[in-house]
Amino acid sequence: MKYIDCDVHHNVPDIEAIFPYLPRKYKEQVEIFGIGIPMQISSLNGGVNGRRADSYPSNGKLPGTNLPLMASQHLDPFNIEYGILTGEFQWATVTPDTYYSAALCSALNDYTIEHWLEKDARLRGSIYVPIHDPVAAVKEIERLGSHPLMVQVLAPAGTKMPYGQKFYHPIYEACERHNLPFTIHVGSEGHGINPSPTGVGYPSYYVEFRALRQQVYMAHMASFVFEGVFELFPKLKVVFLEAGVFWIAPYLWHLDQDWRGLRYQTPWVQKKPSEYFQTNMYVGSQPVEEVPNPNLFMPMMESVYARDRMLFASDYPHWDYDSPKLAFPKMDKELAENIFYNNAADLYGLPKNEVKGA
Amino acid sequence: MKYIDCDVHHNVPDIEAIFPYLPRKYKEQVEIFGIGIPMQISSLNGGVNGRRADSYPSNGKLPGTNLPLMASQHLDPFNIEYGILTGEFQWATVTPDTYYSAALCSALNDYTIEHWLEKDARLRGSIYVPIHDPVAAVKEIERLGSHPLMVQVLAPAGTKMPYGQKFYHPIYEACERHNLPFTIHVGSEGHGINPSPTGVGYPSYYVEFRALRQQVYMAHMASFVFEGVFELFPKLKVVFLEAGVFWIAPYLWHLDQDWRGLRYQTPWVQKKPSEYFQTNMYVGSQPVEEVPNPNLFMPMMESVYARDRMLFASDYPHWDYDSPKLAFPKMDKELAENIFYNNAADLYGLPKNEVKGA
Repeated sequence: MKYIDCDVHHNVPDIEAIFPYLPRKYKEQVEIFGIGIPMQISSLNGGVNGRRADSYPSNGKLPGTNLPLMASQHLDPFNIEYGILTGEFQWATVTPDTYYSAALCSALNDYTIEHWLEKDARLRGSIYVPIHDPVAAVKEIERLGSHPLMVQVLAPAGTKMPYGQKFYHPIYEACERHNLPFTIHVGSEGHGINPSPTGVGYPSYYVEFRALRQQVYMAHMASFVFEGVFELFPKLKVVFLEAGVFWIAPYLWHLDQDWRGLRYQTPWVQKKPSEYFQTNMYVGSQPVEEVPNPNLFMPMMESVYARDRMLFASDYPHWDYDSPKLAFPKMDKELAENIFYNNAADLYGLPKNEVKGA
Repeated sequence: MKYIDCDVHHNVPDIEAIFPYLPRKYKEQVEIFGIGIPMQISSLNGGVNGRRADSYPSNGKLPGTNLPLMASQHLDPFNIEYGILTGEFQWATVTPDTYYSAALCSALNDYTIEHWLEKDARLRGSIYVPIHDPVAAVKEIERLGSHPLMVQVLAPAGTKMPYGQKFYHPIYEACERHNLPFTIHVGSEGHGINPSPTGVGYPSYYVEFRALRQQVYMAHMASFVFEGVFELFPKLKVVFLEAGVFWIAPYLWHLDQDWRGLRYQTPWVQKKPSEYFQTNMYVGSQPVEEVPNPNLFMPMMESVYARDRMLFASDYPHWDYDSPKLAFPKMDKELAENIFYNNAADLYGLPKNEVKGA
């Protein structure tokens, strides 16, 4: 089995690492005032400060900052054909100063290209954009959207508005034009200028923050559908990473039912929400829920259209990493090949492993 | 088959109807300034302004204000043994002035007792409380908690904080002392002093507001579990009304999995979330999702522990009313009797229909 891993987290060792890519104004600002962005609401995560204990490089820097270590722990032993780097830079999007946000995103993108994508042919990159300033976001997509190793736009789950709203449409127009998926990764919910991360304020514990990730994705998914984004941008692909998968099944049942009863209120929504899911959305596998009743696993996979819509994601080097060998119960060969390789190859335009479904 | 309907909406015909129960200060305030509370964010709902077209009384007042009409349309033809009145007064909880909120809740409760509970022996009532002032809420529970026809405390889904937090604990102590379930009903999410109703701000359309109800319930459910509410108040029962049911299955899988991995961070949480669900929580059936694959219906019902945890709710007179005859596919007799009668009889201390499970 070959793998495309759609969620590999590289990182910058420290803020100084992006100074060469940052305008002098912001470099000086960081030197005097610090990064100036709240990095986390809750100081807790899992594992060792959010990461696998064994993923810390010997130089004392953060996990995900050392390519040889990443290769030896993950890419090589599991025969990862392509690893899509997703960083963990959502913090760069939550400052009220969107010029600063844009500068940070550009610097991080340039750092990724030079220090990662140009060093290992297996890696592909994600374009971070200043999500609260769509004009600047489009500018960054124009700057890097044709780079052959940048394969998607990466957006934080935390935002001020659900992603279907008109405010964001210029970004989708740019994604469509450059054939780049719009990939949402968990992070920054409730941070900085974002609103409280649940519909009823701030929870207390990290385990609750994990549970709210799917709530935020639900809001985004309904917004994409009912604002008519996939009618306006029919080639747009949206990827939901790192909030589990099976919530999607009953959520689509619910949305389909309400669409039937209320579609006269949003007549631009031409199809059932579950149909848009099957043509325009993907879900990352991690963390895939353990289904207590093993007989329910396959029906749930079918209910989330996993055969065509699920992308394997390891989340390396985070503590809740899913090993490609252990994440799933036994699956039929076609399903496994699609999740582990073919769906992502389709989405990102990477060489096909085998004929899909053959 | 006999029924207990756990969600029947009565209403007040107009604000003047509660003037006899309102302190003079607030009566005068309403006369001069109006009710002064934002009633809805989005003007749309379904049906005819949210209700069944046939449920409007001939006097031009709101549906749910006419007991003979409610009896002839719903209670009589379906042989409803008991109807739990839930009002639709969540608006009384979203004013920044919690003294006013407390006065409104008391007046509405008194109106319910005099104009509804004392008029039809089938009806039972819910105690509205000023949820943003737990001291005043406890006072109201003390005032009415021993009334034989008031069977639960009714709380809005929309709040400033998730319901597990310490702020609310005096309310649970009072509920436990009076053996009253704490029943959460959809409404007021994002209204008045509440935060934006999703983790990413305000959606645009009513169909999205419907979809966010389960998101808010997810935040509350995780909060109840991980704040240890059911360890502190082991006899407390929490009911989740009107946000569908099947989201609970994958959500509990997710919470159980994360509890296993992270329980050292919340050591006061002694059991799996799904175990607390089975001992301390209930879910109203309405609106029950249509499961596209009929073979999945029963496994999903089992996954939400419907046999012991589901309560039939019609939502009369709202447009998305579930008829007891049509809401469900065919179920085995024991399951149907439990959902339609026995689970609610257990919860509310009403006479048992038949021996449960016999």
